[in-house]
Amino acid sequence: MLLASMKVRSVLLVLTSLLAGAIRADEGMWLYSAPPREQIKAKYGFELTEAWLEHVMKSSVRFNSGGSGSFVSAEGLVITNHHVGADDLQKLSDEQHNYLRDGFYARTAADEKKCVDLELNVLQSIEDITARVNAAVPASATGDDAAKARRRVMAEIEKESLDRTGLRSDVVTLYQGGAYHLYRFKKYTDVRLVFAPEQQAAFFGGDPDNFEFPRFDLDICLFRVYENNQPAKIQHFLKWSRQGTKEGDLTFVSGHPGSTNRQYTMAELEFLRDTQYPYVVPRIKRIEVLLSNWSARSDENARRARDELFGFQNSRKVYDGRQNGLYSAAILAPKVAQEKSFQDQARDRANGAEVSAAYDRIANAVRAQAKIYKNYRMLEGGHAFMCDSFDLARRLLRAAEERPKPNGERLKEYGDARRESFELSLFSDKPIYTDLETLTLADALTLFAENAGFDDPLVQQVLAGKSPRERAAELINATKVRDVAFRKKLYSGGAAAVAAAKDPMIELARLIDPTARALRKDWEANEELRQQAHNVIEKARFAMEGPARAPDATFTLRLSYGPVKSYEEDGKRVAAYTDFAGMFARNAEHHNKEPFDLPARWMDRKAALNLKTPLNFVHTPDIIGGNSGSPVVNTAGEWVGIIFDGNLASLVLDFAYEDVHARAISVDCRAIIEAMRKVYGVDPLAEELLNGRRK
Amino acid sequence: MLLASMKVRSVLLVLTSLLAGAIRADEGMWLYSAPPREQIKAKYGFELTEAWLEHVMKSSVRFNSGGSGSFVSAEGLVITNHHVGADDLQKLSDEQHNYLRDGFYARTAADEKKCVDLELNVLQSIEDITARVNAAVPASATGDDAAKARRRVMAEIEKESLDRTGLRSDVVTLYQGGAYHLYRFKKYTDVRLVFAPEQQAAFFGGDPDNFEFPRFDLDICLFRVYENNQPAKIQHFLKWSRQGTKEGDLTFVSGHPGSTNRQYTMAELEFLRDTQYPYVVPRIKRIEVLLSNWSARSDENARRARDELFGFQNSRKVYDGRQNGLYSAAILAPKVAQEKSFQDQARDRANGAEVSAAYDRIANAVRAQAKIYKNYRMLEGGHAFMCDSFDLARRLLRAAEERPKPNGERLKEYGDARRESFELSLFSDKPIYTDLETLTLADALTLFAENAGFDDPLVQQVLAGKSPRERAAELINATKVRDVAFRKKLYSGGAAAVAAAKDPMIELARLIDPTARALRKDWEANEELRQQAHNVIEKARFAMEGPARAPDATFTLRLSYGPVKSYEEDGKRVAAYTDFAGMFARNAEHHNKEPFDLPARWMDRKAALNLKTPLNFVHTPDIIGGNSGSPVVNTAGEWVGIIFDGNLASLVLDFAYEDVHARAISVDCRAIIEAMRKVYGVDPLAEELLNGRRK
Repeated sequence: MLLASMKVRSVLLVLTSLLAGAIRADEGMWLYSAPPREQIKAKYGFELTEAWLEHVMKSSVRFNSGGSGSFVSAEGLVITNHHVGADDLQKLSDEQHNYLRDGFYARTAADEKKCVDLELNVLQSIEDITARVNAAVPASATGDDAAKARRRVMAEIEKESLDRTGLRSDVVTLYQGGAYHLYRFKKYTDVRLVFAPEQQAAFFGGDPDNFEFPRFDLDICLFRVYENNQPAKIQHFLKWSRQGTKEGDLTFVSGHPGSTNRQYTMAELEFLRDTQYPYVVPRIKRIEVLLSNWSARSDENARRARDELFGFQNSRKVYDGRQNGLYSAAILAPKVAQEKSFQDQARDRANGAEVSAAYDRIANAVRAQAKIYKNYRMLEGGHAFMCDSFDLARRLLRAAEERPKPNGERLKEYGDARRESFELSLFSDKPIYTDLETLTLADALTLFAENAGFDDPLVQQVLAGKSPRERAAELINATKVRDVAFRKKLYSGGAAAVAAAKDPMIELARLIDPTARALRKDWEANEELRQQAHNVIEKARFAMEGPARAPDATFTLRLSYGPVKSYEEDGKRVAAYTDFAGMFARNAEHHNKEPFDLPARWMDRKAALNLKTPLNFVHTPDIIGGNSGSPVVNTAGEWVGIIFDGNLASLVLDFAYEDVHARAISVDCRAIIEAMRKVYGVDPLAEELLNGRRK
Repeated sequence: MLLASMKVRSVLLVLTSLLAGAIRADEGMWLYSAPPREQIKAKYGFELTEAWLEHVMKSSVRFNSGGSGSFVSAEGLVITNHHVGADDLQKLSDEQHNYLRDGFYARTAADEKKCVDLELNVLQSIEDITARVNAAVPASATGDDAAKARRRVMAEIEKESLDRTGLRSDVVTLYQGGAYHLYRFKKYTDVRLVFAPEQQAAFFGGDPDNFEFPRFDLDICLFRVYENNQPAKIQHFLKWSRQGTKEGDLTFVSGHPGSTNRQYTMAELEFLRDTQYPYVVPRIKRIEVLLSNWSARSDENARRARDELFGFQNSRKVYDGRQNGLYSAAILAPKVAQEKSFQDQARDRANGAEVSAAYDRIANAVRAQAKIYKNYRMLEGGHAFMCDSFDLARRLLRAAEERPKPNGERLKEYGDARRESFELSLFSDKPIYTDLETLTLADALTLFAENAGFDDPLVQQVLAGKSPRERAAELINATKVRDVAFRKKLYSGGAAAVAAAKDPMIELARLIDPTARALRKDWEANEELRQQAHNVIEKARFAMEGPARAPDATFTLRLSYGPVKSYEEDGKRVAAYTDFAGMFARNAEHHNKEPFDLPARWMDRKAALNLKTPLNFVHTPDIIGGNSGSPVVNTAGEWVGIIFDGNLASLVLDFAYEDVHARAISVDCRAIIEAMRKVYGVDPLAEELLNGRRK
């Protein structure tokens, strides 16, 4: 469907771009295969060329752990955020070396530290396969049957592509099932740590300043990709800008927004508001409390939980903001109006009844999903057993069950095309701490009992007559899944070896698996119903509007744009740039106390710094979680900064774009060079950035 | 009923004390009117005399803000915990003076600072009025009618007693309605702050070490009560011990345990487990997250929220511990067995069927309460509107409605006997911060929408088309209830003045009041049904066992006892005493970082201190929340320490006593004198404690 539509794109967009410019400002996380050329031309007078697009696309990097980055030298140097690299810094640290807290610099190539299980992806091509996917799903099939057929053809396409090209090949569902594209990625799994500042400097202001502006964070981390044990030779990388930006300059963001829900119907937004958030928000807060308090007991606890705690604190702000947005008429009323107006227009068309029925089908499917939501998250999502040991145990159990099935019949994550990535993470020897495991598992078991009810038969079987704390300690102490050799043995031994091991955590996973799988089947059947209904709606919308809107985010590469721009908050102007002087001022205001403390070398070298150097800035491109680490690029295709956050007002971008108060926040390229030279004394690295290669 | 039973007490207790000694160890928060003389005699060879009891009783002080204390000089000096005084320290502080954080000492009488709204109560007499209360409730009356009749006679008794004696007179419901006693208190409302250490020293180790042992806290705060603007002359005060205690010494705790649920049936425990805790625990955690993060934004935020945040952190540990206990077979199985065994024994007696029916009636009433529980807490409990402004607004509204009614028809808290205390708190000019008010109200409105559902008509009316954040800001900015003069005007003007004010917060309280009152009526009718059923059970139990068990705690004066005693944890012995040396060691282990930092004067004067001075100790008396600040008394009736905490294992004491791992934690009398002399240089105060009067 979208394939045909794309042919008429250029004609239609002349019309819709005017409309979009007026109504939706610079909304959109655009597909590289359908960039908003006309809108940009019309509003900013800049022409997106194929060469510009290909260069930026191939310079953009996906961090499979959940963020974005970019190549910034011909010798494999990749820059991302410190908080994206945090997961790897944590895994490389131990009781003696706390790289997450203290930072890291590899003075020589030999010092560069190989990450434990990091995989980077670089997009090479996009192919529209909508017709083939839809053709494989019989018109008569609904629910689970349709989902199965769709899964089968998607696995087949991925496998074919992998075999033919050797590239990681993922089928991506766009427009809630309105289109399917095949994305092929070059994959790097030998990724080495080059440089990280101290977390104090990268995350200055900590959780209190997170999602706030003015901000003062040097939120960067540098890695280098290797091939055959040599730094990879990179053709497409972004040239470092020496000038940076100024207010009003047009910027582009090329990154991997994780997910948005802009095309959700009201029924789906109400599901978020009435079912999902009331479960998710309190859960995030309980875990934040759990991890903060455990962290406060000792320095070593704090080190162990740091990265995970940060993740939950970050999510808490995100969901609080979204929840308030969905309780707000200012956000919801336009949504209601848009949906009504669209339905009214659609009603007068040939397939009006079909569109109307599609809305009803979505509402029904969502209602069915709401009924099982908590159990689904708890059992299939693993919230009831939150710890790495359970996750590993279940993957061993399921791998043994899934692998013997034909590729297309398996649960998606066990497909052949994903096998290599799956094994990389299954056999990762990242540190796992039994005390932290016991802590989170005990709390998760409590959550399970609270939600499913203590008398629930499955809760009773899971707890086995123990309290959550006792049972968690027992399971974590007895399981062997934290031993990589044990996992390898069971994985290669298949179902028989897994059963013979009688590992208590695997047996727990086995105990709940029939229920978990049934929930997933039910859930995915309703997802399929929703996708089919969205497909009808999107088709109708396309007939009326053309591809005037970018699809919702899917953690695949997108391009967004907008100028550097100050804004107003509580009646006061917030300047677009901060500088080092502001950072030291905020530090003084908080008496150098955590999390506003600065590393000693920052205090020592303050005099050497040009305090007027721009540090962070705000701009309007449309971003969301997953964009962390995305390069900010100017019209010349140069690297001018790096996305690391949005302000509080930007949190509603999940379901509605606005550019009055919402802003993306980036680190300025000039601050990075200044800090590297004056604070860290890592001039060779600064030179590599400025020259695109090592001396 | 209990009156008659009490006559046979001494006979029966010979039997039951043997049983109690063997099975229940030193369980019990005993009534001063029925102390466990025989048990103590049998086990410790110590005789509780009437004189000893009267002296300790009249030396014990209740802090109406939620804690305990005692007189320690003839000149009105009262000692309690720093965390009990925290509420008053917070209210006396402002942006320039942070007494909660920095401590306080009144060098002269003129420097003693009058507390804003603190009321202290000292128990003078106990009268059994069970027969009169029960006689006033017709045998045919059930539910709401019975509750009304009971409320009426209770208000009547309180009013009569107040008029006759001039003493604060409260009817106390014991044994879940098995008995009613009239407690008369001498009341002090001119209470002045004398001394507080810095919170760092009082609450060393902060939340991470809360409910833990070993501990190192100087958790004390001293006040002086005044009458006619002069220090009150106190006949009964506790003599300060110069020797303190040693392991094995028998100790008594005389304080005001708030509430326990030991006599709950399984149906009631399941209500806690399945309904109350799954609501309460996540709510506590969401507010903890809210307040911690707001506090982290600035020093002044932290100061404003400190006392409230501490309260929620404290509750979080309490409820986490209780919840795990109720999910634990080790706690529940004996409860199930005891209930079964009791029912089996009762079945063979004359009123066996009645007892069995009583259990069913409790289960039914609890089921009815579970259905409305969340709404009841949200609307009547005010969780949906958490802020002082709402609380004040509702009290103005309800006072205007209730005052014109006959005394016995009013909601309990508007009864004549409570009027003075009510007005003291209504007209308190404690500081209320609009930013903190807006913060908590916005979160509370969100909680309301989450739980009742956004589409709920009352939620819609409450939010009035705004998001929770917008609506909270609007209400807090527009209401005038934070102005004491405004409150006085409305209170004296009655319903007409309240209506004419059209204050938006009062109008909000009015909007929800019919629903809130209906929920309360429903709730209290079921409480009454439960009380009546418990009455039947307790009567049967008494016939079988005598008053071998103390009633559940009711925030009235109780006596408990047990020796100073070390214990085992994770296979290691935990010594009964800590000392100053241990405090400095823990400080060093945490690099003097918050909350393990020590005030500068502690660091400076370390060399002067006798580091071996006992600081905190553990003992086995049966305590619970509300006991904070209770005097620890030796057999000679001397003050040897002050309760300030229990360990984690003690948290289950809400529903089951144990003395294997559970311990009360107290500050040692010797540490207080040593710190006063060597660290604080407040020798006159130390002298007053040691001599019982000022020089």
